[in-house]
Amino acid sequence: MSESPGIARIRGVLSPVVTPFDAELRPDASRFVRHCRWLLDQGVGLAVFGTNSEANSLSVAEKIALLQRLVDAGLPPERMMPGTGCCAFSDSVELTRAAVRLGCAGVLMLPPFYYKGVPDEGLFRSYAKIIERVGDSRLRVYLYHIPPVSQVPISLALIERLLRDYPGTIAGIKDSSGDWSNTRAMLERFQPQGFDVFAGSETFLLATLRGGGAGCITATGNVNPAPIARLAREWGAWEISEADRRQAALDALRAAFQQFPMIPALKAAIAHYGADPGWVTVRPPLVELDDAQRRTLTRTLDNMRFSMPGLAS
Amino acid sequence: MSESPGIARIRGVLSPVVTPFDAELRPDASRFVRHCRWLLDQGVGLAVFGTNSEANSLSVAEKIALLQRLVDAGLPPERMMPGTGCCAFSDSVELTRAAVRLGCAGVLMLPPFYYKGVPDEGLFRSYAKIIERVGDSRLRVYLYHIPPVSQVPISLALIERLLRDYPGTIAGIKDSSGDWSNTRAMLERFQPQGFDVFAGSETFLLATLRGGGAGCITATGNVNPAPIARLAREWGAWEISEADRRQAALDALRAAFQQFPMIPALKAAIAHYGADPGWVTVRPPLVELDDAQRRTLTRTLDNMRFSMPGLAS
Repeated sequence: MSESPGIARIRGVLSPVVTPFDAELRPDASRFVRHCRWLLDQGVGLAVFGTNSEANSLSVAEKIALLQRLVDAGLPPERMMPGTGCCAFSDSVELTRAAVRLGCAGVLMLPPFYYKGVPDEGLFRSYAKIIERVGDSRLRVYLYHIPPVSQVPISLALIERLLRDYPGTIAGIKDSSGDWSNTRAMLERFQPQGFDVFAGSETFLLATLRGGGAGCITATGNVNPAPIARLAREWGAWEISEADRRQAALDALRAAFQQFPMIPALKAAIAHYGADPGWVTVRPPLVELDDAQRRTLTRTLDNMRFSMPGLAS
Repeated sequence: MSESPGIARIRGVLSPVVTPFDAELRPDASRFVRHCRWLLDQGVGLAVFGTNSEANSLSVAEKIALLQRLVDAGLPPERMMPGTGCCAFSDSVELTRAAVRLGCAGVLMLPPFYYKGVPDEGLFRSYAKIIERVGDSRLRVYLYHIPPVSQVPISLALIERLLRDYPGTIAGIKDSSGDWSNTRAMLERFQPQGFDVFAGSETFLLATLRGGGAGCITATGNVNPAPIARLAREWGAWEISEADRRQAALDALRAAFQQFPMIPALKAAIAHYGADPGWVTVRPPLVELDDAQRRTLTRTLDNMRFSMPGLAS
């Protein structure tokens, strides 16, 4: 492990923070800061600008302004892992540079995702050249493997090559493939080298932790942060059956959201349980839940005795 | 047709102009202007910032600067259809606004392409809100249907709805589905309403023209512009068999390029036949052809008596 001594790696549970918009579809920085603060209080880190953040519907300038607002508001950058991988090479360099300058613990980096079927050599060059352009020893890159959405997978061979050439800088991965055999292969081959494997949702959280992984980065961290964070923190002290029972409870809550498109459903829940209707707004190409969907969601959640303690101010 | 009188629509053959980069991977505006001028001289229009332009590897600022350079160099914006559809809503608005301000004939607009499986309602809102934000009666939007790459298709129902709500502004489509039945359906249903259908390559050029379509926007327009433009201009005056023979010759030339990844192959040909080796550079995640591939390509092309007259200065 070539990690610099004294730099604590970010671990545990992170939330890809949903991004609030005002009626004009501008990012709403005040609501964003408030939600991030609540998430930190609940024990999860801030993977701002993830897929569930509608990050790819935001410009680089909008993302840098939001990140700056979080830091200006006194939120700890050592609990932040902003998504900085864009289609355009120049955008990824600019956004990654800003994240490092602001002291973020790491960045979660999608491969360039417009061109499909590109060779590993091209993806290697993309990561390598971004790292070299940013040129800062504080940079910690977490690869973002989400083939169902990006359609550009990150192979084990690519990870091996990046780890060999950029040890320490290549710090881990979020595996949103939904394929446990892939996560397990990464845990076995790369986690022992200090390459932190995060499951792409809490579905594989316990399995990932048992396999020596770092935690998870999960959409539902926006709405159910404390129970997910608690599993990650305390599972080792519990009986196996107790840990399994807690995992099953997390799975059931997630399933309630998965009845609907995830991002609009997360925002509907925050709007409802936070008594803040403006939260439902999404940017195109997404569409907010309709009234009937919202009622079904909240009825399901109420029946599960779901709550978001401390969210409504 | 609600087109304003006096505004001539762009038609015929357009080239998604390949974007040159210098050794530092910066866009090379001088080479870009030179290539665009050559393309215009050969009779094709400029669909700058298309898929084959590596447009999605360029930032919005880089694209606006390149477009400004073309106009500053005296190239006619009425022969330009820049690609302006980005992932991020705010980026698409900014780039489209710049294109309209510079007087471009139209814009070729990808749907937002990160989020997959989004409803038509979300895509409708995306186009509608961009059109409303740009708020300029000169705007002509050409939809860009390229599901093999974007993975976000533009359905016939979506076109119908957009045409109804934004007649005149919704000006046409580039159909890069590779599915002739889809192109034919558009020609039958929408071309009579003044919705100009461009084939996504010269493969379906003659069929599109025979079906009443507007032309094609094709990668190989970068290297074989004059013969493709000539077919579009003169096919109606030729015997059917002569037109078919010319189409077959275009197909054979295209096949030579399709042995390799298209963008690196186009750049290799321009570098070779233009005696300008710097042209081979691509941005990640693409990879330039290796020496053996370049030799195979140029040998194939030489055997076909291929040339790029007037390219080498």
